[in-house]
Amino acid sequence: MCVFTFQGQIELFAKHTGFMWEIAEEFKAKIVFAEHRYYGTSMPFGKKSLDKEHIGYLSSAQALADYADLINFLQGNVVKPRYPVVAFGGSYGGMLAAYFRIKYPHVVVGAIAASAPIHMYPGMAPCGVFNRLVTSSFKTVDINCSNNIRQSWAVIRNYTATAAGQEVLSKSLNLCSPVKNATDLDKLMEFMQSMYSTLAMVNYPFASDFLTSLPAEPVRVVCQYLNETLAGEKLLKAIGKVVDIFSNYDKKNSCVNYKEGDDYGNLDAAGWDYQACTEMVMPMCSNGVNDMFEPQPWNFTTYSEECHKKYGVYPRPEMARLEYGGNRLQAASNIVFSNGLRDPWTGGGILDSLSDTVRAVVIVDAAHHLDLMPSNPSDPEPVKIARNIHKQHITRWINQFREQLMTTRKF
Amino acid sequence: MCVFTFQGQIELFAKHTGFMWEIAEEFKAKIVFAEHRYYGTSMPFGKKSLDKEHIGYLSSAQALADYADLINFLQGNVVKPRYPVVAFGGSYGGMLAAYFRIKYPHVVVGAIAASAPIHMYPGMAPCGVFNRLVTSSFKTVDINCSNNIRQSWAVIRNYTATAAGQEVLSKSLNLCSPVKNATDLDKLMEFMQSMYSTLAMVNYPFASDFLTSLPAEPVRVVCQYLNETLAGEKLLKAIGKVVDIFSNYDKKNSCVNYKEGDDYGNLDAAGWDYQACTEMVMPMCSNGVNDMFEPQPWNFTTYSEECHKKYGVYPRPEMARLEYGGNRLQAASNIVFSNGLRDPWTGGGILDSLSDTVRAVVIVDAAHHLDLMPSNPSDPEPVKIARNIHKQHITRWINQFREQLMTTRKF
Repeated sequence: MCVFTFQGQIELFAKHTGFMWEIAEEFKAKIVFAEHRYYGTSMPFGKKSLDKEHIGYLSSAQALADYADLINFLQGNVVKPRYPVVAFGGSYGGMLAAYFRIKYPHVVVGAIAASAPIHMYPGMAPCGVFNRLVTSSFKTVDINCSNNIRQSWAVIRNYTATAAGQEVLSKSLNLCSPVKNATDLDKLMEFMQSMYSTLAMVNYPFASDFLTSLPAEPVRVVCQYLNETLAGEKLLKAIGKVVDIFSNYDKKNSCVNYKEGDDYGNLDAAGWDYQACTEMVMPMCSNGVNDMFEPQPWNFTTYSEECHKKYGVYPRPEMARLEYGGNRLQAASNIVFSNGLRDPWTGGGILDSLSDTVRAVVIVDAAHHLDLMPSNPSDPEPVKIARNIHKQHITRWINQFREQLMTTRKF
Repeated sequence: MCVFTFQGQIELFAKHTGFMWEIAEEFKAKIVFAEHRYYGTSMPFGKKSLDKEHIGYLSSAQALADYADLINFLQGNVVKPRYPVVAFGGSYGGMLAAYFRIKYPHVVVGAIAASAPIHMYPGMAPCGVFNRLVTSSFKTVDINCSNNIRQSWAVIRNYTATAAGQEVLSKSLNLCSPVKNATDLDKLMEFMQSMYSTLAMVNYPFASDFLTSLPAEPVRVVCQYLNETLAGEKLLKAIGKVVDIFSNYDKKNSCVNYKEGDDYGNLDAAGWDYQACTEMVMPMCSNGVNDMFEPQPWNFTTYSEECHKKYGVYPRPEMARLEYGGNRLQAASNIVFSNGLRDPWTGGGILDSLSDTVRAVVIVDAAHHLDLMPSNPSDPEPVKIARNIHKQHITRWINQFREQLMTTRKF
């Protein structure tokens, strides 16, 4: 039996995580996709779930308790469970899979934690690492690409200074509404920054509609428009082509709705935003030197005040570290942390094995949890190897469970 | 650094757990006694803490989170803690120590869980085991002792039928107030049953005032009044002597206040009563054949309804098993479960080692967590051996932590 945990609409993840479907028969496994409370349609208070009065029941600890309850139910609510359960997850779901094994080692025999930024907490990873790795994805394709993007921010700002400039900008980027004021500009900048991050995250070797519809090797595709030094309107037009590929690869949108603020395509941003304001504090910053973004320092005080304004809560920056092991994950067992080197979240990942049973698998040429996706003719060799390693660990965990089952004390 | 967790007034436990004080210097350890929330003076809402509106924050999970916070504070709130921490506890405190290691393996390197009835949950231990083991303590001293006690219940009931009988009963047992009705009788029966249980629990080889002031070998002492077949008033008078030793060994009480309902001497019963109605469901029953008590079946429905009446909550019988490992504790590591064979709680204890690092230590001739008490000239040899085993495990855990500290990845 396998349980796969993820934030967002569960159907999306069920569709895009073919690895488990593919190995299920071999392991004679039942596959269960459990939707995280407060995501998708799992809203405990319906439309009021995200209100201040009701959102307090959204936490990773409660989600894990839900999964434990669910598995207990599926095991038949017996004192001695008969079926080994393996947890799978990618991204935050990967963190949850690892946390599940840390907190409920008696419920799951092991966890495959793919692309889990489990060290992306205050004091544990440099705040600039994510943006540096996003940049690296673009720079690796062509240094002109990242340089042009770095130049583009000032150009965009310049063009918003006049009405004529606004029109050029709007037209070049095919925006649904012009950038008229500072608020609009902030939204556009956020949209652009999120776009580059997403492109790096889903830089898969095949066309995919996982977070948004994109061609194979999307970073390479967009960089072909930025492969020589550009400036002014020419640069804007090139960026416009990048935006068009990102927003309209499936030709469904007539213009770019940068105000929507849907940071990660298909993911539910609202629930995560609250969790980031309570337990999942992940410092992010940029300096425009090591990365291609505008300089933006990490300021916990501002961050904290904004959280309080939005939800009436102050974040607890040390909470996730305390609850889930921080730098002492070698105290746990039976966890595989896999990370693709194309994935910017790898900056918060475990890249070295910590013990005999807490293992790191580093995958060259792989983006965000590619190893959990359906196998594809375009898969790079390293991801095939990683999937085989996963299977070996799963086999070992299941055998261990079976041996223990036979030697456990009886009443 | 050592942390010792217990329910009840923390000073009581600090005084009676000399083992840690004695080994502290050898390990160059700081000793920290952390009082469980809602016990002793740790009342988060003052005198209103136990009200229906405020008692919901009382749970083992919250207590463990408190301990994690406290240790994090003592470690200096650093990402990489420098000091190994060992958890100690006895009885419920022993369960907490084990649970702490299960849930926070990154916070404590190991746990000494003394006399922890960690299997005393529905479906995991027979409901009669506790009372059977209490009986066994008395029977081992003298079979007449347990037989007389078994006979005494009917005699007590008979004497409450008439006013004259009530007077004889009251006088024989030196009761502060006569047993006039069914409620009084219930209270007296509860008091007596609890008395025998406590005598078995604290059946230490030395005089102790741990739960209540008692002589050395209290079961042997009280059984000397019950060493031949007795009946009627003679039996009542003999039971009166037992009650006198139990209630007034320190000569502080002029009569026996059986209505106080303070089940376990110095312990805070109120908080535990609530926990027994939420997560700590421990079925208890007797049949008068395998044990010396009146037959009393375990009825979860009645139990559950009483909890709802008292606190507005229904117990979750599977909760502790789900949260804390149930029959799958071999999935955890670095825990020593010690149990004394004189202790009735041993019926819910781990008596066989489950893995290389989840170990059972069975101590002949020891009552409730004797191994954690100050060393005493009267200590039986097995308890000395157990303490040495504890020290060996602690040494191993600390060394393991130090090795990991040196090899952990640096940022």
